[in-house]
Amino acid sequence: MRLSDICSRLNIPCSTHDREITGLNTLKDATESEISFLENRKYVSQLSQTKAAAVFVTEAMAPDVPEDVAALVVEEPYLTLAQASAFFAPPRLAEEGPEPVVGEGSRIESGVFLAKGCVIGKECHLMPGVFVGNDVTIGDNTVLYPNVSVYRDCIIGSDCIVHAGAVIGSDGFGFATTKTGTHVKIWQNGNVVIEDDVEIGANTTIDRAAFGSTVVKRGARIDNLVQVGHNCVIGEYSVIVSQVGLAGSSVLGRNVVMGGQSATAGHLSIAPFTTIAARGAAVKDVKTPGIYSGAPLMEHRQWLRLQGIFAKMLRK
Amino acid sequence: MRLSDICSRLNIPCSTHDREITGLNTLKDATESEISFLENRKYVSQLSQTKAAAVFVTEAMAPDVPEDVAALVVEEPYLTLAQASAFFAPPRLAEEGPEPVVGEGSRIESGVFLAKGCVIGKECHLMPGVFVGNDVTIGDNTVLYPNVSVYRDCIIGSDCIVHAGAVIGSDGFGFATTKTGTHVKIWQNGNVVIEDDVEIGANTTIDRAAFGSTVVKRGARIDNLVQVGHNCVIGEYSVIVSQVGLAGSSVLGRNVVMGGQSATAGHLSIAPFTTIAARGAAVKDVKTPGIYSGAPLMEHRQWLRLQGIFAKMLRK
Amino acid sequence: MRLSDICSRLNIPCSTHDREITGLNTLKDATESEISFLENRKYVSQLSQTKAAAVFVTEAMAPDVPEDVAALVVEEPYLTLAQASAFFAPPRLAEEGPEPVVGEGSRIESGVFLAKGCVIGKECHLMPGVFVGNDVTIGDNTVLYPNVSVYRDCIIGSDCIVHAGAVIGSDGFGFATTKTGTHVKIWQNGNVVIEDDVEIGANTTIDRAAFGSTVVKRGARIDNLVQVGHNCVIGEYSVIVSQVGLAGSSVLGRNVVMGGQSATAGHLSIAPFTTIAARGAAVKDVKTPGIYSGAPLMEHRQWLRLQGIFAKMLRK
Repeated sequence: MRLSDICSRLNIPCSTHDREITGLNTLKDATESEISFLENRKYVSQLSQTKAAAVFVTEAMAPDVPEDVAALVVEEPYLTLAQASAFFAPPRLAEEGPEPVVGEGSRIESGVFLAKGCVIGKECHLMPGVFVGNDVTIGDNTVLYPNVSVYRDCIIGSDCIVHAGAVIGSDGFGFATTKTGTHVKIWQNGNVVIEDDVEIGANTTIDRAAFGSTVVKRGARIDNLVQVGHNCVIGEYSVIVSQVGLAGSSVLGRNVVMGGQSATAGHLSIAPFTTIAARGAAVKDVKTPGIYSGAPLMEHRQWLRLQGIFAKMLRK
Repeated sequence: MRLSDICSRLNIPCSTHDREITGLNTLKDATESEISFLENRKYVSQLSQTKAAAVFVTEAMAPDVPEDVAALVVEEPYLTLAQASAFFAPPRLAEEGPEPVVGEGSRIESGVFLAKGCVIGKECHLMPGVFVGNDVTIGDNTVLYPNVSVYRDCIIGSDCIVHAGAVIGSDGFGFATTKTGTHVKIWQNGNVVIEDDVEIGANTTIDRAAFGSTVVKRGARIDNLVQVGHNCVIGEYSVIVSQVGLAGSSVLGRNVVMGGQSATAGHLSIAPFTTIAARGAAVKDVKTPGIYSGAPLMEHRQWLRLQGIFAKMLRK
Repeated sequence: MRLSDICSRLNIPCSTHDREITGLNTLKDATESEISFLENRKYVSQLSQTKAAAVFVTEAMAPDVPEDVAALVVEEPYLTLAQASAFFAPPRLAEEGPEPVVGEGSRIESGVFLAKGCVIGKECHLMPGVFVGNDVTIGDNTVLYPNVSVYRDCIIGSDCIVHAGAVIGSDGFGFATTKTGTHVKIWQNGNVVIEDDVEIGANTTIDRAAFGSTVVKRGARIDNLVQVGHNCVIGEYSVIVSQVGLAGSSVLGRNVVMGGQSATAGHLSIAPFTTIAARGAAVKDVKTPGIYSGAPLMEHRQWLRLQGIFAKMLRK
């Protein structure tokens, strides 16, 4: 889609930098054919580094946009982003496209739905009620138990096991809120990438990225009823126990362990080899590997001390 | 069903106010063709206002029943209510009834089950594995992703998106416990009403009402793995983040925001424009809009102070 | 499989006690045709009592193995157990076996998958999208709502109701971690047994046992989105409210009540007639019935006092 068409559909001043636009992305990750946005002054320094073709900005921030990037001045950049996201949403379930490809030795049970363009590797087993969306790719020797749903464009590696009812690639929870309190959907045009040797529990949900990918790296183990928000990255061999909630853009290093019902707030990093005890809640980066507990999170031994202090209070 | 038949099936004294009875309801909401109940003395003042045809009451409370209402004296009114609820349960999946109606431009994929009496609007998309029960009504331009289950009698508006694996209209968690500790199911004969422009996350569950409706109002956004108990009301444009649990009969005003893993106890109200932080737990009404945190819930700034006090204790 | 074959496949010294082996089990529960393991010194006293045919042990613990039990000396017994567990995993979905048997009066809706060897009782109702695995047994008058998945070998009693999207018998979360931080799956070769008159909520997950059975006893009521880990036992008439998480091998007595979002750590017991309030977290055995709150759990009245102390601190 031409940049000029996008501006015209959004009813904003036409840019002089007209070119073909393929999608939206963050300032950091946008390529020369993508549009980005900046609403929060805090990130203004990222403007000078961006490779984006164009950026939705407020009038106040427009002067900071580099010369070779089109400044698209709007009142509420995030809201405009939401409106523009709809232009790039692929069809929910395309009836056109290449016939599904199924590798040798794979078993596709009755009641499985394979959408056009999907590619299933060798020796896979897709059980009844499984849905595989357009252009999904699945490696070899992977098992999808009954009633698993894999949304379009997602990638699942080899030697994976996905338990019944899990949902891979549902929309991330994204919207822009207007001044009157209504919400405009940010279409989630990214995907989910699950690497090899990953096991995913029953009824777990892994949301697709707004832009780019939500990633579960090689060897990770995810239990039942876990929520993985959009754009999360789960490190190699991490262990995520049941009912954990990872808010959007949480980045876990390798071999992170998260106990049952623990959680992360969004946009933070957890150091490799960190253990977060059951019910713990990370609200900022964890930079030093160790064992942490509590909500908000603290070093586990501090948390134990705190419980000791409480116990002493109760003995008085 | 005649009141006299109900009494006879329950083996309780026959009423003099015989008439046709269509269902059960609370004292407050019962119509002249419904039976209600009173077990807890606390609500005895509601007796005088009720429009119910009849009320299950204990002998002690019988004198407080207005003259034009039949007092059905039983030992354990709540237990009798449970027993009576079975009489009004509609068939789980009726094979008789009008053929499903599907509006122009709607796509019903293979593997969708449409029960008799359901009505699907225009330009909808029902993806594989979707179940739509008897007499369900769905508006225009609504999407049900794969393996969504919508129980009978529920109503979903226009422009809604329901993600994979979500369950709309499952039975609320209701039963009466006998003196010996066994449980008698209270059949959940109400429904769920989802208004227009609502998005519901993957594997979220919204229970049908015991009587009346569980309601999700216009423009609400509900994330993945959220539990909405029976008879809840979620206000317009409210935002319910992943893994929130709303206990039965929670009433949220408009634009309430509930952070991840937060919760409400049952039978309480949250003021419009209130924010409950992640992991917060409302155990009583929130009457003043604001930001609240903690379990039990307090003003967010108080919660911050409390964390400061704890941190100080640990530095000693 | 002969013990000698197992040793040979695992590349460990061949035992002198060769015999037919039918599976793996704990020291306590292993029969004379099963292999067990011991890694943790803490349980060394169980060695003298075991009936197991053979035990994976470290060299240091080998002398404690009784004479009539084969000591299979390995470096990491738990890891070897994981490797051996794969030998006993039954086929995921066997195409051979007796035709499914469906009792009189049962309704099997379209889109239901019945695997070979399953037996459905009388007057049951299996709704669209239900999956029933090999050799599953279901009693009379039991209802499975749409898109329920029941993995192979599970047993569901009579008069049960399982709501939409629930998963019965998914793999427990079990693996042995190697010195380099990778994980080896412990195949979950047990099953789930659900006794009569049990109701299970929508999208709840109940994991199969590693060995033996995960058990939900007669009359229990389980709400939506609950996680029941492998080898748990839920007592008669217990009430498990939404979003509760029971870690593996939690044993609940009869009439235990667990409030919303509460949890147990693994390998502990909760006394009959105990109530754990919403959000409570049991981290050790509860030996005395009562009402408990908090994380970690304490007597409810102590928890109330603690909240009072906090409130007082905030008033200063």
